[in-house]
Amino acid sequence: MTALKNDRLLRALARQPVDATPVWMMRQAGRYLPEYRATRERAGSFVTLCKTPELACEVTLQPIDRYPLDAAILFSDILTIPDAMGLGLSVNEGVGPRFERPLRSAAQIDSLGVPDPETDLRYVLDAVRLIRRELGGRVPLIGFAGSPWTIATYMIENGDKDFHRSKALMYSDPAPLHRLLDVVTRSVTAYLNAQIAAGAQAVMIFDTWGGALSTAAYREYSLAYMRRIVAGLTREREGRRVPVTLFTKGGGLWLEDIADSGCDAVGLDWSCDIGAARGRVGQRVALQGNMDPAVLLGAPARIRDEVAAILASYGRGPGQVFNLGHGITPDVDPANAGVFIDAVHELSAPYHR
Amino acid sequence: MTALKNDRLLRALARQPVDATPVWMMRQAGRYLPEYRATRERAGSFVTLCKTPELACEVTLQPIDRYPLDAAILFSDILTIPDAMGLGLSVNEGVGPRFERPLRSAAQIDSLGVPDPETDLRYVLDAVRLIRRELGGRVPLIGFAGSPWTIATYMIENGDKDFHRSKALMYSDPAPLHRLLDVVTRSVTAYLNAQIAAGAQAVMIFDTWGGALSTAAYREYSLAYMRRIVAGLTREREGRRVPVTLFTKGGGLWLEDIADSGCDAVGLDWSCDIGAARGRVGQRVALQGNMDPAVLLGAPARIRDEVAAILASYGRGPGQVFNLGHGITPDVDPANAGVFIDAVHELSAPYHR
Repeated sequence: MTALKNDRLLRALARQPVDATPVWMMRQAGRYLPEYRATRERAGSFVTLCKTPELACEVTLQPIDRYPLDAAILFSDILTIPDAMGLGLSVNEGVGPRFERPLRSAAQIDSLGVPDPETDLRYVLDAVRLIRRELGGRVPLIGFAGSPWTIATYMIENGDKDFHRSKALMYSDPAPLHRLLDVVTRSVTAYLNAQIAAGAQAVMIFDTWGGALSTAAYREYSLAYMRRIVAGLTREREGRRVPVTLFTKGGGLWLEDIADSGCDAVGLDWSCDIGAARGRVGQRVALQGNMDPAVLLGAPARIRDEVAAILASYGRGPGQVFNLGHGITPDVDPANAGVFIDAVHELSAPYHR
Repeated sequence: MTALKNDRLLRALARQPVDATPVWMMRQAGRYLPEYRATRERAGSFVTLCKTPELACEVTLQPIDRYPLDAAILFSDILTIPDAMGLGLSVNEGVGPRFERPLRSAAQIDSLGVPDPETDLRYVLDAVRLIRRELGGRVPLIGFAGSPWTIATYMIENGDKDFHRSKALMYSDPAPLHRLLDVVTRSVTAYLNAQIAAGAQAVMIFDTWGGALSTAAYREYSLAYMRRIVAGLTREREGRRVPVTLFTKGGGLWLEDIADSGCDAVGLDWSCDIGAARGRVGQRVALQGNMDPAVLLGAPARIRDEVAAILASYGRGPGQVFNLGHGITPDVDPANAGVFIDAVHELSAPYHR
């Protein structure tokens, strides 16, 4: 493997000194970029784009070619695992992901097996290998998966965001739900380890829907399973630590619990003040985040002001990875994303002197 | 006015001793009740139901007649104010509220005036007077309004939940947004004072969308305006304090700030642990909440377990008002709501001995 030319991300995740705060953007390979829309058009469907390693590689590298980002993130989807389990994924713009065969019975849950990554999800691992080769060591590659709770609720709800099917199970007959979370946990662990073996230099777990739970239910149905994944991951490869970041959207109340999971870093959505978060957990983990993506709809001067405010809130010293608090949205002007990335590098440098 | 026969709610909000924890449910007059659906059918539309004092009174009293609740809450909608400002409200089931004339320009914002409650919102005040008469002192009547941020974003977004129009303003040209929040704040203050004059014995401000903001933006665009309302309210009537409850959904990170607003009580959504919340702010305010409404989809024994867990988390002593963490949903079996209410009274009694 080629030596890594820009290791700011890995250094920041290890809370080691850096010359400037590393920055990347959730969904940086996405619809706000005209070159992404062109490749997506060529692919014909979102799922084909995910399942064709050459195309997934192409869109993964587009933001890296356009901006001085400090990390690439695999272009894929958190629902590749249930798709590999046989649920039949399709993604329609404006509607979101849907399964042909969502889970509607305990018998269906009990029929699910753990996909073998190198056969059932080979297209993802081929994409990881190809991206690593094409990156040529410019920046590290982040692999990812959804959290068990987030994946399981997608499998049950099939697009409904009130989680009433999952919660009705939780508060009447929780055993099948725990069995589902268990098989998804084993699947995510194998899948992330396969991504690491294929070349992912850091991994992130997206718990998009953990914030829909009560504190007690979050611990029992989401965090406990993420903790099992973290404990089961390969944590060193190519002579470097492979850091793990956990991101629970809406999880600001539970940062202490998340930081105690064994992860290296905690992702923050924009509702948290990052300085307050650092005060609560910054002795244990790095922090990633957390500008409201909607700031990128604003004026360049305001974007710089918001970056400056977040840097000032975090303060001096290592352990910060700059990002948005959630994915960049399709309505953002790509020039504003450039303003954001440049502002992070420029305005953070004094904090690292 | 008739003497109040059940003053548990007012005592708990004042952090005075009670014999059992008072309980009511957000949206307790709602679609889960067959008698509500019958009245709603008769009214023809949701807006007509709101605007006809006799019908609003009828549905307000339905849950009081069915369950041993400790409070009635005015049946109305947080969007009566923009409707009175001329935006033209309609509410369609499954779609939600929409305005005929949403705000699309600064000129529209600058043309808005403060509605006069006794003329422009007379139907609400007539409903308050009628409900007080029909309640005959059984339980206190809670009046309410939306928070300025929540009302303003509805006026701008007209149903979009990403808040991109409001936030694009916030991060490019915030002055018109502040002018809108100012006129809504003056309107809400006059409206709540009119509800209190008409007989509301407690009031609540629903900040449904405050949780969509960053910490800094929440303080500037939501909490600052709620604070102005609290400072402007009539706080005593009929020889009793009229307590004010602030409820920001997704505001669990900001409880200290909310408790410092001058309010008497803070509403909690279900993501907060109420014991942890009490530890943070319970010396200053009462706490209202906070069971996940989805628990009511579960089994009776699990509903009782969840009530017991929340009571145990809060612990002994006054200052708790039991509620759901958000509105009861249409898919709940009315029998389960009864299990919930009975469980609160029965299981809380030992904590008050």
